[in-house]
Amino acid sequence: MTTQQAFPAVQPQTELPEPVQTALQAVEDLMLEVVDSTVTVLRDASRHIIGAGGKRVRPRLALLSYAAVGGRDPLEAAPVAAAVELVHTASVVHDDINDHGVVRRGRPSVNAVWGRTFALLTGDYLFTKVYELMAPFRDLNILLSEATVALVEGETLQAAAVKENNFSREVYYRVIALKTAALFKSAGAIGASLGGGTPEQIAALADYGYNVGLAFQIIDDILDLTADEKQLGKTAGIDVEQGRGFATAYTGSDEPTLDEKVNSIKAKALEGDALQKAHDQAEMLVQMAVNQLKVLPPSPAKDALVDLAHMIVDRTY
Amino acid sequence: MTTQQAFPAVQPQTELPEPVQTALQAVEDLMLEVVDSTVTVLRDASRHIIGAGGKRVRPRLALLSYAAVGGRDPLEAAPVAAAVELVHTASVVHDDINDHGVVRRGRPSVNAVWGRTFALLTGDYLFTKVYELMAPFRDLNILLSEATVALVEGETLQAAAVKENNFSREVYYRVIALKTAALFKSAGAIGASLGGGTPEQIAALADYGYNVGLAFQIIDDILDLTADEKQLGKTAGIDVEQGRGFATAYTGSDEPTLDEKVNSIKAKALEGDALQKAHDQAEMLVQMAVNQLKVLPPSPAKDALVDLAHMIVDRTY
Repeated sequence: MTTQQAFPAVQPQTELPEPVQTALQAVEDLMLEVVDSTVTVLRDASRHIIGAGGKRVRPRLALLSYAAVGGRDPLEAAPVAAAVELVHTASVVHDDINDHGVVRRGRPSVNAVWGRTFALLTGDYLFTKVYELMAPFRDLNILLSEATVALVEGETLQAAAVKENNFSREVYYRVIALKTAALFKSAGAIGASLGGGTPEQIAALADYGYNVGLAFQIIDDILDLTADEKQLGKTAGIDVEQGRGFATAYTGSDEPTLDEKVNSIKAKALEGDALQKAHDQAEMLVQMAVNQLKVLPPSPAKDALVDLAHMIVDRTY
Repeated sequence: MTTQQAFPAVQPQTELPEPVQTALQAVEDLMLEVVDSTVTVLRDASRHIIGAGGKRVRPRLALLSYAAVGGRDPLEAAPVAAAVELVHTASVVHDDINDHGVVRRGRPSVNAVWGRTFALLTGDYLFTKVYELMAPFRDLNILLSEATVALVEGETLQAAAVKENNFSREVYYRVIALKTAALFKSAGAIGASLGGGTPEQIAALADYGYNVGLAFQIIDDILDLTADEKQLGKTAGIDVEQGRGFATAYTGSDEPTLDEKVNSIKAKALEGDALQKAHDQAEMLVQMAVNQLKVLPPSPAKDALVDLAHMIVDRTY
């Protein structure tokens, strides 16, 4: 069993409220526990990727949304927060198959260790565990199922656009809205719903999540260009190699060969002001997200949501 | 859009009750409708595999279980029956990636037409649509999520046993219980629960489904050895090539190379009495399944469940 985190979570600038911190630890424990199986390869491969850590932005967002609307015990939200993180985890396991990614969260990817067949099944397994964790939560399933559909649509739209060589800026925003922002949005909405938020509060935290999700993905795409593998904890430059990510969208490259494409897109992205423009957009989105929070009463959870939003644009990995 | 069925459903010996037949058509329509997407490759690939037809044993089982316990309108059960069939459909799309299957339900497989990346995403998409269809059905999600976990565990156990060369008879029964019987069981239980069955009736239809599922898989494995591709509507001999299926379990082959393995297992299976033994077991399981139905009052749906069980061992594809 692999419980030690090889890749540390990003720490926000201020502490999480203590009950939220406790619940976040419960999320870790629950994810490791729920993937236990007598079929040992599923257990081991799942714990390998879960135990590697990651930023845990999505479960933080769910737990803080729960607390910020006055939810009494964030531990109540641990299963839904774990489910949201496992949707993301399942998708990265399958992404690494399709992108031939060999490093993830500072460890060899599941496909690098166990091969494609077992990586595919491990991703499926994690998706089924999402479903298992959410089953008791009745109507919240509607929110998470919509986000999961969107995520797969976003991944597919991205792959299709690269294949058809039409990865425009418009497609880029549609992709990141579907593959990233929808799940962040559902994390906010699910946490706030479970915490007993008003419809206005639930909508605000959904919008907060959506904007933070867009910003998060833009920053991710910038880091994919500028950071090295050790900082990222995953195979760097995958997005450019695959002819996608904002650099492709901003530079409109359509070079014929992969090598030329990679070099050309990367060079253009780095020499122009594309990176700065993208960063400015992420900052604006985060500001919009923070503005959404004004419908919430003051609380340590609200402060932590503000910090989380800023951390997302300020991070270096 | 591909709505014509290339591969006809197996017809039971007697007609389905008319409301169940209507609901079964609604299941077809619903599956095609729910996979609609602005991401056209997901829509097209999903409709390709769904529109190819298939035996539809699982949704029949769900709808008949609903009707047999006195459910008033089988159309009410169409979404859960569609969800159960889509779990199976998602799994065959992913199976065909791992097994390099190029023919499925009389058509080229999704990976043969769209390639591995899109086949992986299409399988994921179908799983998310299961989740979407089931989201309003509250506690029934618990039953289907358990079955979906079991299915992935069964597929994985099978792949692991082949890789480790320990595909014993014991492993074979564990595999078919997980990968096939669990979903059949959930189809019976979900249909009966939604139809308002008593706990005794729900348990009986769950057991019926479980035994029918075991029998179904044993017959499938026999047909994989004895039928040709045209009859099966899928790549024949895959199970033996992959060193699994009952033939491997019964003959205990551990030949060193794949070609030798295939020839050896197939020859042993065909010359011995392994096929007859397996067929006898399937017959016994079906008899046990039919015996479970005695707790149900007489009805056309009950008669159709008896027919369905017998059809499963009598079929030639």
